[in-house]
Amino acid sequence: MFAEYDVIVVGAGHAGCEAAAAAAKMGSKVLLATMNMNTIAQMSCNPAMGGVAKGQIVREVDALGGMSGIITDQTMIQFRMLNKSKGPAMWSPRAQSDRMRFAEAWRLSLEQTENVDFWQEMVVGIEVEGGKAVGVRTSLGITIRAKAIVLTNGTFLNGIIHIGEKQLGGGRAAEKSAKGLTEQLKELGFEAGRMKTGTPPRVDGRSLDYSRMEEQFGDENPSKFSYKDTQPLTNQRSCFITYTNSEVHEILKTGFEKSPMFQGRIQGLGPRYCPSIEDKINRFADRDRHQIFVEPEGWSTVEVYVNGFSSSLPEDVQLKALRKIVGFEKAKMFRPGYAIEYDFFPPTQLNLTLETKLVENLYFAGQINGTTGYEEAACQGLMAGINAHNKINEKAPFVLKRSEAYIGVLIDDLVNKGTEEPYRMFTSRAEHRILLRQDNADIRLTKLGYDLGLADEDRLKAVDKKIEETAEIIAYLNNKPIEPEDINNILVSLGSAPIAEKQRAGQLIKRPNIEISHIAAAIPAIGDYLSKFKADSIEQAEIAVKYESYIEKEHVMASKMGELENYIIKERIDYRNIPALSSEAREKLLKINPETIGQASRISGVSPADISVLMVYLGK
Amino acid sequence: MFAEYDVIVVGAGHAGCEAAAAAAKMGSKVLLATMNMNTIAQMSCNPAMGGVAKGQIVREVDALGGMSGIITDQTMIQFRMLNKSKGPAMWSPRAQSDRMRFAEAWRLSLEQTENVDFWQEMVVGIEVEGGKAVGVRTSLGITIRAKAIVLTNGTFLNGIIHIGEKQLGGGRAAEKSAKGLTEQLKELGFEAGRMKTGTPPRVDGRSLDYSRMEEQFGDENPSKFSYKDTQPLTNQRSCFITYTNSEVHEILKTGFEKSPMFQGRIQGLGPRYCPSIEDKINRFADRDRHQIFVEPEGWSTVEVYVNGFSSSLPEDVQLKALRKIVGFEKAKMFRPGYAIEYDFFPPTQLNLTLETKLVENLYFAGQINGTTGYEEAACQGLMAGINAHNKINEKAPFVLKRSEAYIGVLIDDLVNKGTEEPYRMFTSRAEHRILLRQDNADIRLTKLGYDLGLADEDRLKAVDKKIEETAEIIAYLNNKPIEPEDINNILVSLGSAPIAEKQRAGQLIKRPNIEISHIAAAIPAIGDYLSKFKADSIEQAEIAVKYESYIEKEHVMASKMGELENYIIKERIDYRNIPALSSEAREKLLKINPETIGQASRISGVSPADISVLMVYLGK
Repeated sequence: MFAEYDVIVVGAGHAGCEAAAAAAKMGSKVLLATMNMNTIAQMSCNPAMGGVAKGQIVREVDALGGMSGIITDQTMIQFRMLNKSKGPAMWSPRAQSDRMRFAEAWRLSLEQTENVDFWQEMVVGIEVEGGKAVGVRTSLGITIRAKAIVLTNGTFLNGIIHIGEKQLGGGRAAEKSAKGLTEQLKELGFEAGRMKTGTPPRVDGRSLDYSRMEEQFGDENPSKFSYKDTQPLTNQRSCFITYTNSEVHEILKTGFEKSPMFQGRIQGLGPRYCPSIEDKINRFADRDRHQIFVEPEGWSTVEVYVNGFSSSLPEDVQLKALRKIVGFEKAKMFRPGYAIEYDFFPPTQLNLTLETKLVENLYFAGQINGTTGYEEAACQGLMAGINAHNKINEKAPFVLKRSEAYIGVLIDDLVNKGTEEPYRMFTSRAEHRILLRQDNADIRLTKLGYDLGLADEDRLKAVDKKIEETAEIIAYLNNKPIEPEDINNILVSLGSAPIAEKQRAGQLIKRPNIEISHIAAAIPAIGDYLSKFKADSIEQAEIAVKYESYIEKEHVMASKMGELENYIIKERIDYRNIPALSSEAREKLLKINPETIGQASRISGVSPADISVLMVYLGK
Repeated sequence: MFAEYDVIVVGAGHAGCEAAAAAAKMGSKVLLATMNMNTIAQMSCNPAMGGVAKGQIVREVDALGGMSGIITDQTMIQFRMLNKSKGPAMWSPRAQSDRMRFAEAWRLSLEQTENVDFWQEMVVGIEVEGGKAVGVRTSLGITIRAKAIVLTNGTFLNGIIHIGEKQLGGGRAAEKSAKGLTEQLKELGFEAGRMKTGTPPRVDGRSLDYSRMEEQFGDENPSKFSYKDTQPLTNQRSCFITYTNSEVHEILKTGFEKSPMFQGRIQGLGPRYCPSIEDKINRFADRDRHQIFVEPEGWSTVEVYVNGFSSSLPEDVQLKALRKIVGFEKAKMFRPGYAIEYDFFPPTQLNLTLETKLVENLYFAGQINGTTGYEEAACQGLMAGINAHNKINEKAPFVLKRSEAYIGVLIDDLVNKGTEEPYRMFTSRAEHRILLRQDNADIRLTKLGYDLGLADEDRLKAVDKKIEETAEIIAYLNNKPIEPEDINNILVSLGSAPIAEKQRAGQLIKRPNIEISHIAAAIPAIGDYLSKFKADSIEQAEIAVKYESYIEKEHVMASKMGELENYIIKERIDYRNIPALSSEAREKLLKINPETIGQASRISGVSPADISVLMVYLGK
């Protein structure tokens, strides 16, 4: 009943939406199969995009030509650049979203994307012929053929919801779980595991006393996610901060005997860095309070998300404890928090393109790979969509290096190290994070996205202009002499030493608390000169000048590492024939079958000694 | 864990939303319990409100202070007044809605309604003490107490979805069905039945060739539903009309052997006047085409609703047949049509307040009573909400007469006649329809709504002004003499006989094709006079003058019937002691226990002879 598609994407969450959009824009005929067209791009957990390291990922997705940044900009209700007081590698954009509008905007955007078709039904199996995925089977018994399949099933595969002693089947509250796929994939030889995640209660904002909480405003001059011409916010909603206390903790403890986690009913591991409140008071018994971040769910709704209070304790315990939090004394709950267990597939079963090693043309993206987070999911979807398209068109795989993007770090980590618990991105995971900034994702990636046929020409033109302007400003700053009498007052007022003789502007900007704006304000000629450039270019030049030595050093490191990365070993080594390898290394290398020496070096269990053995074997 | 509520409403469709809003506005503390807060006020079937007789109901709901009219006005994409060429009793407002925005607006409106709390969970049972409903039990095992309960479960009670030979559990596609309630209500002594309804496939508007269909525009000067100051549309989207043909029918017939209806897998009866396409080609075998009404689903979405093509045939048959419809040659399907079977409770088990006879303070509204249609559901929800509030506050029941409102007709029909198949409103069901017009719902009902504490003062003021202005205009028209020389040219040009001597304006307006606007245009003094009044008042006066004799006659009829209606018999007659009654009448009268002779006279199986017996028994 269907013509053959190029790519079928199963699931329409953050991963599925990006995968479908990317493959379609590159020219593939795409079918997006979802159990419910009314829940496309639902934010299952908190109504926010970005955050530390995650915001960088959204910027990278955007720079490549993905949609998450644009959708976020269109539907956000608050924007903050986190960590502005730290170095620019730590700056991380974060937005509160209008949950309903976010989903609506994604759906409408996909509808406007040429080459994306939709089908509302549960996919229960993959069609495999000769080791290749060639289609999907649905619950109605339809077979839909395609050249490549991307699975983005989120928490729906055999999802079980836990609240206290109750267990309810479901992929999200009140939504059905998906059956059949895991079982079939296991038959095909895939290893599957269980993971767990959770969500906090939602409460009625009208029942909260915000005057007793700390208000957290959006940025005064809010930025945005997309490098395209989306509009920054002119109006914002605030979040609020409050804290648990020992009374809250004592009440929660009364529910421990009914906790599905503590009583062993939940087998999957949960996200370490996004633990439930009961987990926090259990693991950090010495802490007498935990922060609660009160997030509005949209422009107009009274519903509020209680970030930091994820729980699968019985709902009455959740509510009783909530009401002991300052500002929550009269809280009314709309929906209880819950935990959800679901199937995932250890991502060491994937190539760096996110194609599975066992079944050709089959791609996995998002929580099915053991990750957590909208941003982690979105970028995997994007990469899977790109690679599925490239594969079936006999184009080169698209793999990002660890020194090129957080996306590269994420996928490299997943594929080489695997993950036992839901994997979340952190800046600390990226050894080259000083290069992987939110301010330069376009410089790093837009040309690549354009060459893929994904990022449009406007994006390329914009980044080319930015690069050009940045270079021009850097040259100017590094040349422009500044006289002591023009600047010393300012320097002193900023607590910086005065200069005795004229200095280049670039030199001054290298000082820790001297900014380009100080100099521009002090010296009208410089201000005038800069006024013709875009703010982004000025910021980029400032960062380049200020952190020049750090950035250069990191480039050298990356390039050294890059040599290992360029050292292709896949198919060149028979690990069984190298007795000098440790048996663990041999086993892991056989399992992962790394592309390069660099990748081999990051496999857990492969030591530097093993790497030396490999180099010797290869005659190096 | 919950404080006691005044009213708990179970289900948040059209009925549940109106019930919750009404009871809360009247002052009850209301809990709206829904399985999924993300699907509040979903339009399960077509994206439209109103239509013949149904539009009148929405106007009545609005006039009483309900919300459906306001929500519709805020989110419609097209408005048409149907039957404008017929008499004003047939004029029926109809709107195409933006499906997503309709649901969003309802939810946000409920959130802004004081006294409405929300709880997201499945209700699995009613708490009953001493024959009274005192609360609900949820799937998590929570008991929530309340003074009254309104059940509005729609198609969710043991819902089964049928597509061809496949059966899927669910209250709507991809949504869980609700379990437990039916079973408990049966144990309490309720009789339950099965009904069936269906929905057509949704298709991709980009795949249709609209140039081959007939475009149906919205009205040039669109009106609206609410008597409040909502804004009429300035911009509209068109619908399109096309037709099935014999080729389509032949293809559909190839699916009959897998049809769940024809093969007996569906036991419940479906809506006679909204049949599936297979039903239509089966029942009307001589017709070689059926109209298909192509409805956009919103302002921006490409999804399209194929009204008239409801089907539960296998999805491949649906698609193959669809593609033989003119304009649908390349149609892509997003979601297949399906049939759904669900539990209902024959409404003869209700009082006219929609309270159940078996369990006090328990109310049923919407599809659970065997009706079909958003409007039918909404008005029942409103009435149940009002009556639940009144009952627990020891106020008089609120029952509308058949001569007062379609709502009165609907509930009277349900309670006295019951229904074997999904009950839909028609103008033909209302014997006093000439009084029950969309133009005068405010005059009929707003004062009642205001006295209930539901309609606000603005509404009362507006209708008082309308009544006053109308009376003034009528008096003016009935007095104003018109000279032959001022009007005869116009009369002749309109095909009406010229007058020989002066006549009152009112007399002229009684002529079939002479409108008040013609006279106002011809005689500047009349035009000037009228220009100070609202258009609604002028229209009302015109209808009153033009149809004076019909309306008066109908009022006399209604008043005669009213005498029977006022003749209270409940608790005054022991039917078992009247041997002269036919045995069928005795049985039905015992079962229904009518309030009045009027109600008794409308019970199917109670003959005029039986009524005479009752009158004799009562000494009349």
